[in-house]
Amino acid sequence: MEEFIDAVLKGDVRAAARLMREIDDQTPLARETVRALFRHTGNAHVVGITGAPGTGKSTLVDRLITVFREKGMTVGVLAVDPTSPATGGAILGDRIRMQRHATDPGVFIRSLASRGHVGGLSRSIYDMVSVLDAMGKAIILVETVGVGQDAVEIADLADTHILVVVPGTADGIQALKAGILESAVICVVNKADLEGADRTAADINALLAMRTGPQKGWQPPVLKTQATKNTGVPALAEAIFQHANYLKRQGKENARSKRLRASFFNALQQMLLEEAVERLNREKKLESLLAALEKRRIDPFSAAQEAAATLLAVKKGES
Amino acid sequence: MEEFIDAVLKGDVRAAARLMREIDDQTPLARETVRALFRHTGNAHVVGITGAPGTGKSTLVDRLITVFREKGMTVGVLAVDPTSPATGGAILGDRIRMQRHATDPGVFIRSLASRGHVGGLSRSIYDMVSVLDAMGKAIILVETVGVGQDAVEIADLADTHILVVVPGTADGIQALKAGILESAVICVVNKADLEGADRTAADINALLAMRTGPQKGWQPPVLKTQATKNTGVPALAEAIFQHANYLKRQGKENARSKRLRASFFNALQQMLLEEAVERLNREKKLESLLAALEKRRIDPFSAAQEAAATLLAVKKGES
Repeated sequence: MEEFIDAVLKGDVRAAARLMREIDDQTPLARETVRALFRHTGNAHVVGITGAPGTGKSTLVDRLITVFREKGMTVGVLAVDPTSPATGGAILGDRIRMQRHATDPGVFIRSLASRGHVGGLSRSIYDMVSVLDAMGKAIILVETVGVGQDAVEIADLADTHILVVVPGTADGIQALKAGILESAVICVVNKADLEGADRTAADINALLAMRTGPQKGWQPPVLKTQATKNTGVPALAEAIFQHANYLKRQGKENARSKRLRASFFNALQQMLLEEAVERLNREKKLESLLAALEKRRIDPFSAAQEAAATLLAVKKGES
Repeated sequence: MEEFIDAVLKGDVRAAARLMREIDDQTPLARETVRALFRHTGNAHVVGITGAPGTGKSTLVDRLITVFREKGMTVGVLAVDPTSPATGGAILGDRIRMQRHATDPGVFIRSLASRGHVGGLSRSIYDMVSVLDAMGKAIILVETVGVGQDAVEIADLADTHILVVVPGTADGIQALKAGILESAVICVVNKADLEGADRTAADINALLAMRTGPQKGWQPPVLKTQATKNTGVPALAEAIFQHANYLKRQGKENARSKRLRASFFNALQQMLLEEAVERLNREKKLESLLAALEKRRIDPFSAAQEAAATLLAVKKGES
């Protein structure tokens, strides 16, 4: 265990890869190791890149790696694969392109399939970012599909949250639904050669203006890129550096402490609900409660109280 | 108990007022009665009206009551008072104006102070709406300040959710932050005589267009009103009726079942978290966990696991 931890801290690629697999399998060894490593984290700058499938996130990440490496920074990449079979092929292609960096010892790339990981996914992502951080990577890029709960949690994890959209409105809807735009500090309109790019950028700017309104502080830039041609990528990297500097001036640690607490309470709430649902299912109570609710034989708060009592009964009787 | 329930079902004002007080105090009698009444609910059309303090919600409600009464509909009103002393005076004035309807037997108005109700507020609102519903009110107006968790829960409670803003950008920010715009089906720019009303309406329309984009179904109208002069209020009432008809065509019961389930899971999650935090505090564990988190001696998921174990330990050892 000690040796294993030391190897990861020294950036040993084989040890790190093994730990990543353990995390993927959610083994007790993974939990213990991550826990021990956590005190060595907090040095990397974590960049979350979210967007719908097909927005070109992987290509952007591939190009960003090159920019960061040219500046001599070590890079960790965590790519969370979407499960959709419809887009799987294209994304695999992007991933293969990205792998050209894998022979560079200054880059560590890991993919994580989101299939079958519901509930555990955010923990796995969190743990893997901690490993990359403890390995000493200067910058960590986390790429995820920008929809649903996981994407929102990325905002808790990342120092700099980038939202990628393509010209058109569909992504904007998704972003709004997931509440992502709220936390994005840089917006990217990728595939900016497509029709409507200026309109999309203007729409996002209008939305951001409403959001930030009279507030002071960081004004999220809306950047147009064409990742396949490397257009706009250096400007994006520059925006990331600017935001990192902004955070330093504002007291980065403070924001991180807040995010750590938020992650803790979110995880606790999630664990308790999952345990409650599992236990109610096991005791065949959930179905009957939901049926009673449907027929208005019980109100939702009374039903919740009954459900909570199932989970807490023994401990309560004790005190 | 039986008699009490019967009186409420018959719309007896004194019985209802007493039950409302019991709900306010969160007594066991209130819980039992609401539970028994719940099977008699589901007939009213519930309208949630949210917006920041000073947007003129109370005046709008006052005017809407008149419109509904002219159409012969019975009306229940639940006004959730904000706690801010800065705006308390003005709002009290509006409330007093609204009370002119209190002598009308077809109208039942109840105020609920949000001060000191954290956590319990959403349950109280929910229960009071159930009472108004069981009393046989045709339409129920729930007026709340449109910020924070409570406002979001109003979206679970109401059939028709109206967002009220005034010209300017600040409200838009709040609405975005609270995720309210996502659930609003009618937007009102009140005080439309003020400068910038058209711009605000256009901004909201742009936001809504991004949200609904190519989707079909209900297109949220953005209405301009000047409640103090009764301008635009009949059109607002008309929009409420149109949305009620839309819901009927879409299968209102289906949407309500979904909302009942969402309320159940939200309440369960909230109760479990509150119980966990209370127990951790009592056992003096929360502070040390948060301190360890701050110093990165533990990662947030391991910390959540420890916290969850405190709550679940006994029951778990049992099985």
